[in-house]
Amino acid sequence: MLVANEASTPLAKKVADSLGVEFSTMIRKQFSDGERYHAFPSEIAEKDLVIIGATHNDTSHQEVLDLIQGGRYWNAASINVVIPYLGYSTMERAKPDTREIPKGITRTRQIFRARPHFVAFIDLHSEAVLHAHAGEIRTKHLWSDRLVVKKIRNLDLDDFVLVSPDYGFSKRIARLASLLDCPHTAADKDRYDTDKTIVSQVSSVVKGKSAIVCDDMIRTGGTIIQTASRCLDAGARDVYVLATHLVLSGEARKQFKKSKIVKIIGSDTYPGVKSDDLIDVYSVAPLIKKVLKSHLLSSADRLRNH
Amino acid sequence: MLVANEASTPLAKKVADSLGVEFSTMIRKQFSDGERYHAFPSEIAEKDLVIIGATHNDTSHQEVLDLIQGGRYWNAASINVVIPYLGYSTMERAKPDTREIPKGITRTRQIFRARPHFVAFIDLHSEAVLHAHAGEIRTKHLWSDRLVVKKIRNLDLDDFVLVSPDYGFSKRIARLASLLDCPHTAADKDRYDTDKTIVSQVSSVVKGKSAIVCDDMIRTGGTIIQTASRCLDAGARDVYVLATHLVLSGEARKQFKKSKIVKIIGSDTYPGVKSDDLIDVYSVAPLIKKVLKSHLLSSADRLRNH
Amino acid sequence: MLVANEASTPLAKKVADSLGVEFSTMIRKQFSDGERYHAFPSEIAEKDLVIIGATHNDTSHQEVLDLIQGGRYWNAASINVVIPYLGYSTMERAKPDTREIPKGITRTRQIFRARPHFVAFIDLHSEAVLHAHAGEIRTKHLWSDRLVVKKIRNLDLDDFVLVSPDYGFSKRIARLASLLDCPHTAADKDRYDTDKTIVSQVSSVVKGKSAIVCDDMIRTGGTIIQTASRCLDAGARDVYVLATHLVLSGEARKQFKKSKIVKIIGSDTYPGVKSDDLIDVYSVAPLIKKVLKSHLLSSADRLRNH
Amino acid sequence: MLVANEASTPLAKKVADSLGVEFSTMIRKQFSDGERYHAFPSEIAEKDLVIIGATHNDTSHQEVLDLIQGGRYWNAASINVVIPYLGYSTMERAKPDTREIPKGITRTRQIFRARPHFVAFIDLHSEAVLHAHAGEIRTKHLWSDRLVVKKIRNLDLDDFVLVSPDYGFSKRIARLASLLDCPHTAADKDRYDTDKTIVSQVSSVVKGKSAIVCDDMIRTGGTIIQTASRCLDAGARDVYVLATHLVLSGEARKQFKKSKIVKIIGSDTYPGVKSDDLIDVYSVAPLIKKVLKSHLLSSADRLRNH
Amino acid sequence: MLVANEASTPLAKKVADSLGVEFSTMIRKQFSDGERYHAFPSEIAEKDLVIIGATHNDTSHQEVLDLIQGGRYWNAASINVVIPYLGYSTMERAKPDTREIPKGITRTRQIFRARPHFVAFIDLHSEAVLHAHAGEIRTKHLWSDRLVVKKIRNLDLDDFVLVSPDYGFSKRIARLASLLDCPHTAADKDRYDTDKTIVSQVSSVVKGKSAIVCDDMIRTGGTIIQTASRCLDAGARDVYVLATHLVLSGEARKQFKKSKIVKIIGSDTYPGVKSDDLIDVYSVAPLIKKVLKSHLLSSADRLRNH
Amino acid sequence: MLVANEASTPLAKKVADSLGVEFSTMIRKQFSDGERYHAFPSEIAEKDLVIIGATHNDTSHQEVLDLIQGGRYWNAASINVVIPYLGYSTMERAKPDTREIPKGITRTRQIFRARPHFVAFIDLHSEAVLHAHAGEIRTKHLWSDRLVVKKIRNLDLDDFVLVSPDYGFSKRIARLASLLDCPHTAADKDRYDTDKTIVSQVSSVVKGKSAIVCDDMIRTGGTIIQTASRCLDAGARDVYVLATHLVLSGEARKQFKKSKIVKIIGSDTYPGVKSDDLIDVYSVAPLIKKVLKSHLLSSADRLRNH
Repeated sequence: MLVANEASTPLAKKVADSLGVEFSTMIRKQFSDGERYHAFPSEIAEKDLVIIGATHNDTSHQEVLDLIQGGRYWNAASINVVIPYLGYSTMERAKPDTREIPKGITRTRQIFRARPHFVAFIDLHSEAVLHAHAGEIRTKHLWSDRLVVKKIRNLDLDDFVLVSPDYGFSKRIARLASLLDCPHTAADKDRYDTDKTIVSQVSSVVKGKSAIVCDDMIRTGGTIIQTASRCLDAGARDVYVLATHLVLSGEARKQFKKSKIVKIIGSDTYPGVKSDDLIDVYSVAPLIKKVLKSHLLSSADRLRNH
Repeated sequence: MLVANEASTPLAKKVADSLGVEFSTMIRKQFSDGERYHAFPSEIAEKDLVIIGATHNDTSHQEVLDLIQGGRYWNAASINVVIPYLGYSTMERAKPDTREIPKGITRTRQIFRARPHFVAFIDLHSEAVLHAHAGEIRTKHLWSDRLVVKKIRNLDLDDFVLVSPDYGFSKRIARLASLLDCPHTAADKDRYDTDKTIVSQVSSVVKGKSAIVCDDMIRTGGTIIQTASRCLDAGARDVYVLATHLVLSGEARKQFKKSKIVKIIGSDTYPGVKSDDLIDVYSVAPLIKKVLKSHLLSSADRLRNH
Repeated sequence: MLVANEASTPLAKKVADSLGVEFSTMIRKQFSDGERYHAFPSEIAEKDLVIIGATHNDTSHQEVLDLIQGGRYWNAASINVVIPYLGYSTMERAKPDTREIPKGITRTRQIFRARPHFVAFIDLHSEAVLHAHAGEIRTKHLWSDRLVVKKIRNLDLDDFVLVSPDYGFSKRIARLASLLDCPHTAADKDRYDTDKTIVSQVSSVVKGKSAIVCDDMIRTGGTIIQTASRCLDAGARDVYVLATHLVLSGEARKQFKKSKIVKIIGSDTYPGVKSDDLIDVYSVAPLIKKVLKSHLLSSADRLRNH
Repeated sequence: MLVANEASTPLAKKVADSLGVEFSTMIRKQFSDGERYHAFPSEIAEKDLVIIGATHNDTSHQEVLDLIQGGRYWNAASINVVIPYLGYSTMERAKPDTREIPKGITRTRQIFRARPHFVAFIDLHSEAVLHAHAGEIRTKHLWSDRLVVKKIRNLDLDDFVLVSPDYGFSKRIARLASLLDCPHTAADKDRYDTDKTIVSQVSSVVKGKSAIVCDDMIRTGGTIIQTASRCLDAGARDVYVLATHLVLSGEARKQFKKSKIVKIIGSDTYPGVKSDDLIDVYSVAPLIKKVLKSHLLSSADRLRNH
Repeated sequence: MLVANEASTPLAKKVADSLGVEFSTMIRKQFSDGERYHAFPSEIAEKDLVIIGATHNDTSHQEVLDLIQGGRYWNAASINVVIPYLGYSTMERAKPDTREIPKGITRTRQIFRARPHFVAFIDLHSEAVLHAHAGEIRTKHLWSDRLVVKKIRNLDLDDFVLVSPDYGFSKRIARLASLLDCPHTAADKDRYDTDKTIVSQVSSVVKGKSAIVCDDMIRTGGTIIQTASRCLDAGARDVYVLATHLVLSGEARKQFKKSKIVKIIGSDTYPGVKSDDLIDVYSVAPLIKKVLKSHLLSSADRLRNH
Repeated sequence: MLVANEASTPLAKKVADSLGVEFSTMIRKQFSDGERYHAFPSEIAEKDLVIIGATHNDTSHQEVLDLIQGGRYWNAASINVVIPYLGYSTMERAKPDTREIPKGITRTRQIFRARPHFVAFIDLHSEAVLHAHAGEIRTKHLWSDRLVVKKIRNLDLDDFVLVSPDYGFSKRIARLASLLDCPHTAADKDRYDTDKTIVSQVSSVVKGKSAIVCDDMIRTGGTIIQTASRCLDAGARDVYVLATHLVLSGEARKQFKKSKIVKIIGSDTYPGVKSDDLIDVYSVAPLIKKVLKSHLLSSADRLRNH
């Protein structure tokens, strides 16, 4: 049975379609005191339950926990969770002596503690969250690299360079560049404070080329817009932006419209994101389909073909 | 260190005052994408952490989990949680074959799984939730009986009877009646469906007396208002209502104003509840103070006076 | 492999028969110091082990624990337990400040801690015991409703009403009444102490009808015999009694013979119960057969029909 | 608080006396259906609970589990268990391919799974049972060597040798012999089957001396009586028997009376054992007192004298 | 997928051959700082992983832990471990008050804590190590009895007796003797200290026969060589030695060459052991093959033939 | 009691000295087959055990596990581990689809699974390893920042800049720069492959200044030597190197001698490191002393001053 939390229902329906299975809508009611009622629409005992749910806010995160625990309660054969967008993933560590709660770790730990059998994540900001359990839960980190390469090739640019605004992301950019057989660089920062980042300069390798600024997620978009400006300063012909998770919070959309960025390419992992003039959204459904197919079918196949 | 989730801050401050300890306000920030940042305001390593938090909605429930896990992360010596009002406590079991998620169990289990050392609850709807863990966490069910008896005595009624609208609650009413040395009864129901309850009749024991309708919580107030009417039908002089948890959702306040109920007595366990002409709110702070004092001081005292 | 503890062997044999599988008798020896030796009669490694056992006394309870752990030790593929009658199920909570041990919880927890994969219970007195583990064990609460409805229909009464002596049981009675499309009521109690119950009155709805007093279990039978008398006082034509678990301890059988009850209908969940003039025992074997079939076959079928 | 299961109450009272603490008698009731009710006689929250209980039959074993879990339920600060005699300790391993349940392991595991904080055992038949948990519970194996040495010295024999009927026990005998500075030997067995043991011969070292046949426990006494005969055959002056656990099941007492054994020295670990003409029972209370004192006081002292 | 740690690769290849499956060689690199890199050579997700590895030194033990955890990390369907020789198996208990670390228990516990699904051991020195976990992991103790009996029969001796130098091993010798239908005895020890053993005498049953001294393992060989001498003193025609685990540490090989022992028969469980003039090594591969076949195939077959 | 594994004994002695406690040397023996025996030199039951041990190779890592488990076995009151250098810390994640074992996670998990109560690490390469448990163990990440700042100030350089060769380390460098109130930069890389790094260029900010190349550890030193060359190319006056962990494997020392680096400053976390002409080693003992003091004393103090 394939279900989703409310927020990820559109994406989950695409996955169900591509797998050729029925999407099951949870029975939901809300009481006058705000409490939410959930029931599975049909028998799940001894069935494999797939739950697709982004955890981008308290309600969505909590709904994922409820669905996992509900599946356990009603004796699902296995509980397989796909988290397209993991909330709090940038809070994966606490600064020394701040006593701040590293929710990237603690909230992911809540998911593991609900005792699913398998959890897949997409393009995580940090893999540290994968380890927030005792080593007994099957996890899978899905990379959207192949989907992204296809999207870039479809842009049909004749000369381009990948640009990373964030050094933490540069290993993945190197990997993408090698798949695309193109150059890549990272924005330079002569001087920056502990907390604030000022993008000062981008290497001249972008000169005369299309610059594709790549990141794992766009939140307010500040750093990316700065990096785009520096690319143009350094002689880039034009600037594209590529990011898996399009959070686009606060004034992000407005700021991007004002920038000289030609196009933003991103996925449908963050609930509610939509394509428009500037933003070109592709779906991660094929990626999810693939992992579910290989993960859930394998045990059956293994037995059949023993 | 004594902290609270945002919703239970007023109650927690009362507890801190009565214990003579400082209330520590968590450092809170909210980012543009809605994610909330929390940090403890000062060192908690090797200190006993007390967390007071009602879990009446997703955000409050989640904040309690975050605080427990944060206390663990920063090496608090012990984590002691008081949950004045437990959300979803009426969903403590699933009807046969409904496949509904019994969140009274599953959400309480989330709290236990965050691994606090001690959790106290107040006037639980069902004790089943206490057992939603593997038997290793210290729990304490606090009853407000003594506070309630005092409130009733203060009403200075010369002849009264306790009335239960809900048979599940009648054991506690018998206990209260025995403390108050007064009669008690329960509303009669000749015929009722699986789902809907119609209060048909109250015993004539209420005739000429003040009826005090008692329940653990008031949500929309429907059953209680019906019971009050039946008490008046049966000749009660006047009707008071007593309940620990004043949820008062939907049209509850408006409906109560229209009813002939003289006064509603309830506690401050549900966040945001306030006294007014009709509602008389007392605080459970003395109850919480007492348990914290005995629980936290005991280990120290035990060693000193060995 | 299907085995049983000694006490539930007759019931287990019926289940084996109806499933068309062999019943395996454990090898048992007892040493002079009273210690009991158990061995499985044939290889169980990599087989699904089914254990049927009531836990109505220390020895039976302990034998169930031994069998589960023995199955684990000898590498059974899965361990599936059916507990027709759960001992101590009425001690599912401790009264405040009594420091009494709630063995309904703690003994059930022992069963879960022996680490079976699946545990089914029949007509539990309280579902609280289901939650006495950390949320990782598959449990199933079987209701005998369908079997009971059939038994009542077979009585061929033309006009009857279901009567509950115990408010805790009234939800299930409402459910039965709705399946039978008949009225139901509950005995009234104007005044009762914390500890002792006096059934004072039954609604006139029973007048001229057959009253079927329903409860989950009969122990000494006191309350049920009182309720039966009140039914007759209120004009009931005759009284039947219906209960899943026929403990019939102490003087119960003698007291029932003296009462004006026409017939007691109950199941064979409690070890040793036998039909006689008054008591009509039906078997829960069909219920157990059904759950075992669906639970154990499903994984195989699921793979075959993938 | 120091409590005991019913069987070990006399021993526990001796321990309480020697520690100078009060012995608390559990509140016990038994219902007509055989179920037993237990309550702690006074507040145990935040107190160290000591439970003394032999587990020599199902009821005693089960009562120890109930007391541990009850202590957990009512928030004892720590739960410290002393098991003077461990039931099933000779079933500490299963013979290959027998599918017999090694209850020495599985029942001890039940004790650990009830989650006490500390468990002490006396003169275990096999230390394998100590490891029947995941390595997280404090265990202590108490040896009665010092008490035994004192008892032997008090016999005031001028020339004696220790004789082991069982090679498994010979390491301990070597240890005792070294404390007593006396010779020791073991009975010889030219030929024995897998299952049955025939003691054929004892070394001539016993000639003209008092032979003290030593074992960890006496059950039916068969092997010990045989060994005693062989000692006399080999010229021993007279024969004494020494064993920690006096089970004396079946015809043991009668057989011993018929043998030429002068005296049997054993402890009060097995419930109900009493001194008489032949049997001289000493108490292990000093041993238990010592471990409780050092274990329970140490944490307090450690803090005081830091 | 069948892999091995480096040390047990030759044995694992034999097992793979006899099972008709491919042996997969781990990808191994070693960095300049001594750290070792391991990667599985092909996809293991959803496959059954078999790991064969003796744990005779820190590096081999650690490699087994790494392989188990690696299999967990990459989502193997099941992780099945065969440990031909278990390091530290003779340190299965700590002497009283020595504070020595019983690594036989603690290191085996490390293996269980790495969370494999199944662990098989061969001819363990003590079964106590099997219980060094919480009772949830499938373990199997494989006895080489059948292989050994064949080897002895192949010696074609016309009259022989099995001799045990170590009483702890005598139960297994009785079992072997019963399979071979031959007599057996154990070396006698009139007097021995707590720590040192002097083999004084062997029964005259060996006179004129071939003596086969049997033990579970040969380390320095001291006791075995002594026992062989005593056999010759007692008139044995000649002496053979039989042991499962040929550690042969220190001067063992040299001492054996100097002794009058005709042949040493042992298995290939200990890494690096090789046949020569004196030593005749047989392989345990058939034993391992058998358990893997029955353990891994059973679940598939069970489903097919349901 | 304060002990250490063999490798970290010199550091542990310094810590013991500065704490004013005795250093306890484990009793160690090695048998001819290579197995190592360990015993605690005196009673540890109910004492706080401190274990200091780098885990830079299999033997040292294993010894730390043995000591933790030994402390558990002998009932230490608490087990507190300090790991000055964590082996495999750079393997904290697996590259996609490589099936490489991320030993940084799995080996650290072994440490947590041995169930210490507290584990402190120094200057971790990645904090991801901190989360390799279920959230129940107290961990502490100690930063050597304050010690390092002091060392740099002692160099008495009048104008210097911190240079990071590795972007992963740049956050810490920013933190150090802010404590020292000096500029900092990172080496630039126009183009690099997925696997190999070529340091192409360092910003001109180093011109005329002393460049201090900072990293968390030096293994072969390749990248650091390259970065140093680029600094000189960019006009740096001279180059210093600063790193916490001086692994210096392979040809590192020789290569550094050949380079133009003036001085290497590092700590004594990696076993065996020594000061010489080029290398200036400071001790982390003050850092360890501080954390042990605050962690172990706090509970006692808390009780005293309650």
